[in-house]
Amino acid sequence: MRDLLGVLAYGELTAFERLADDARFAPTLADKAAVAGMAVAEFGHFRRLQGRLTEMGVDPNAAMEPFVEALDTFHDSTAPGDWLEGLVKAYVGDGIAADFYREVAAYVDAATRELVLDVLADTGHAAFAVDRVRTAIAAEPAVTGRLALWARRLVGEALTSAQRVAGDRDALARLIVGGRGDPAELGRMLARLTDAHFERMASLGLSG
Amino acid sequence: MRDLLGVLAYGELTAFERLADDARFAPTLADKAAVAGMAVAEFGHFRRLQGRLTEMGVDPNAAMEPFVEALDTFHDSTAPGDWLEGLVKAYVGDGIAADFYREVAAYVDAATRELVLDVLADTGHAAFAVDRVRTAIAAEPAVTGRLALWARRLVGEALTSAQRVAGDRDALARLIVGGRGDPAELGRMLARLTDAHFERMASLGLSG
Repeated sequence: MRDLLGVLAYGELTAFERLADDARFAPTLADKAAVAGMAVAEFGHFRRLQGRLTEMGVDPNAAMEPFVEALDTFHDSTAPGDWLEGLVKAYVGDGIAADFYREVAAYVDAATRELVLDVLADTGHAAFAVDRVRTAIAAEPAVTGRLALWARRLVGEALTSAQRVAGDRDALARLIVGGRGDPAELGRMLARLTDAHFERMASLGLSG
Repeated sequence: MRDLLGVLAYGELTAFERLADDARFAPTLADKAAVAGMAVAEFGHFRRLQGRLTEMGVDPNAAMEPFVEALDTFHDSTAPGDWLEGLVKAYVGDGIAADFYREVAAYVDAATRELVLDVLADTGHAAFAVDRVRTAIAAEPAVTGRLALWARRLVGEALTSAQRVAGDRDALARLIVGGRGDPAELGRMLARLTDAHFERMASLGLSG
């Protein structure tokens, strides 16, 4: 549980940094302010997770530390090159990560679960990203191929770093795998994550 | 007044972006979270200025637009290369800018002045920057020369961009110069800004 809250807290802190950085690419001041506002919402989530860890008597920095390298490596290897890549990363990458953490949260106590589901709630970024990406594709259909390739790379890198984290952190791996009485449930979880991922790709207009 | 609030709003939005970006350089997770928290406070100031402009019937984006190029040019030409340069920029650069805006605010109506003074209030960054820079200098006195040179460059670039803004925006220039009945008051204002700047340099341990 300390691991779940720790990885989420560092995830929110890096989400803050990343969104704030993406704001740089925004084509208009209104878009910049909107993305900056989403970054600020992620920081609010970070503060709540930090507060919960402190309440539990856990040093939040110590809880985050084991995940810094894996998350930083993921983000360094998937730094968006422009505004659209940033939006796709925020929607597709954060979407699959949030689904995964929600699955894990099914196996922790009710109070922790409620906090986790709350901080994973969409801050308006999904609709914003879908709108901006679809508009860009409508204006220039040629970007579709590049963005679809980018989304596949994101998922590949995310899986690699998830494996690294699970390999390093036994407690977290046991929570994911061992929380389920039935080994087939792990397969079903992966199927659910994959389905939701393809739905997001379709809503961006990047599937098929 | 629209110009004063517009330049401040864009200043706060870029302060948010810059601080969020500086968080990347933070040597510890605690420092990263502290700087991210300060970035979030700046975004809160941006929201208040945006709200005030909207209340006045002014489109906040239109009010910020005339200052985008000058502020972006300033920040691009003074992008910190590391954590200490970021701290010095936030303390010395934002310090002189805040002093300047406070001087201008003396000549606007009371409600606007109150908002301006409020959003310019230190969010804890000053004490944080002074502490971290002094500690770094104590550990490695050789950084003093490099940081002092950096601070001088910042002030030079800030003056250049202030001149550009004043040249472009007559209304703002008149507010600064013409608000004063006495032309000698402009000289006294510059003397006050310079004095406060040297006090900040001394508190960082970068003077003399």
